[in-house]
Amino acid sequence: MAETFKIRRLEMSDKRKGYIELLGQLSVSGSVTDEEFDRRFEEISLYGEEHVICVIEEETSGKIAATGSAMIEKKFLRNCGKAGHIEDVVVDSRFRGKQLGKKVVEFLSDHCKSMGCYKVILDCSVENKVFYEKCGLVYKGVHMAKYFA
Amino acid sequence: MAETFKIRRLEMSDKRKGYIELLGQLSVSGSVTDEEFDRRFEEISLYGEEHVICVIEEETSGKIAATGSAMIEKKFLRNCGKAGHIEDVVVDSRFRGKQLGKKVVEFLSDHCKSMGCYKVILDCSVENKVFYEKCGLVYKGVHMAKYFA
Repeated sequence: MAETFKIRRLEMSDKRKGYIELLGQLSVSGSVTDEEFDRRFEEISLYGEEHVICVIEEETSGKIAATGSAMIEKKFLRNCGKAGHIEDVVVDSRFRGKQLGKKVVEFLSDHCKSMGCYKVILDCSVENKVFYEKCGLVYKGVHMAKYFA
Repeated sequence: MAETFKIRRLEMSDKRKGYIELLGQLSVSGSVTDEEFDRRFEEISLYGEEHVICVIEEETSGKIAATGSAMIEKKFLRNCGKAGHIEDVVVDSRFRGKQLGKKVVEFLSDHCKSMGCYKVILDCSVENKVFYEKCGLVYKGVHMAKYFA
């Protein structure tokens, strides 16, 4: 059966299309209830164009095949500039090798540019550095974290 | 003359205390007018506890000696968890070696923890990695960027 991929914003009904399970291929997603999902969806929606989540749906199976998010940060630096933060990019292991990750990064990057950001940034593992270089990003430094839980 | 350092949130009057010039020691800050500063201050204030800017004022000179910001990202990952993004940490070259940077990072990290974040993250140059390790962060990967301007 032919695969048809459509790129768009996350919708509330995407929970039924495997969105949380897909995030689970990236990190711990946990067991999110429908109520928790809807509440978080609405909280993020309040930010409008400043926090967008992109998905690629495979329409034949009705499954979410890839996703990524972008959040826009307002700074004082760079003449009160804005920076786009790309987060949580993942492609379903069943759909890899089809450039879906690149399409997600381009979608989010284009969005941040259209919103007036002077840059987009993201953090990744050393293994994924080459992939993001193919998406037009360059190495800038190191990523550090402190976990509370 | 004795130096007295006070850590607190950014206030609108901090533009007169050298806040933008301090950011210029980190990156291009540009020539921000009072109107632009006030507008951006108000835009960021709308996020309330979800985007805070910390400063350390040296009270004898009335100068801002250090700063850093933290923005909270709402995720679906980690059971609809939250991540704190620490950005734009800088200490005035005249006031280095006094642990002010560490105090800024602790202030922002404590804030993110109190807001329920499961982690704080930040990006830095390879040269600053050791400093952030002393602040309790660990190396996680690489930082990538794409500049539009």
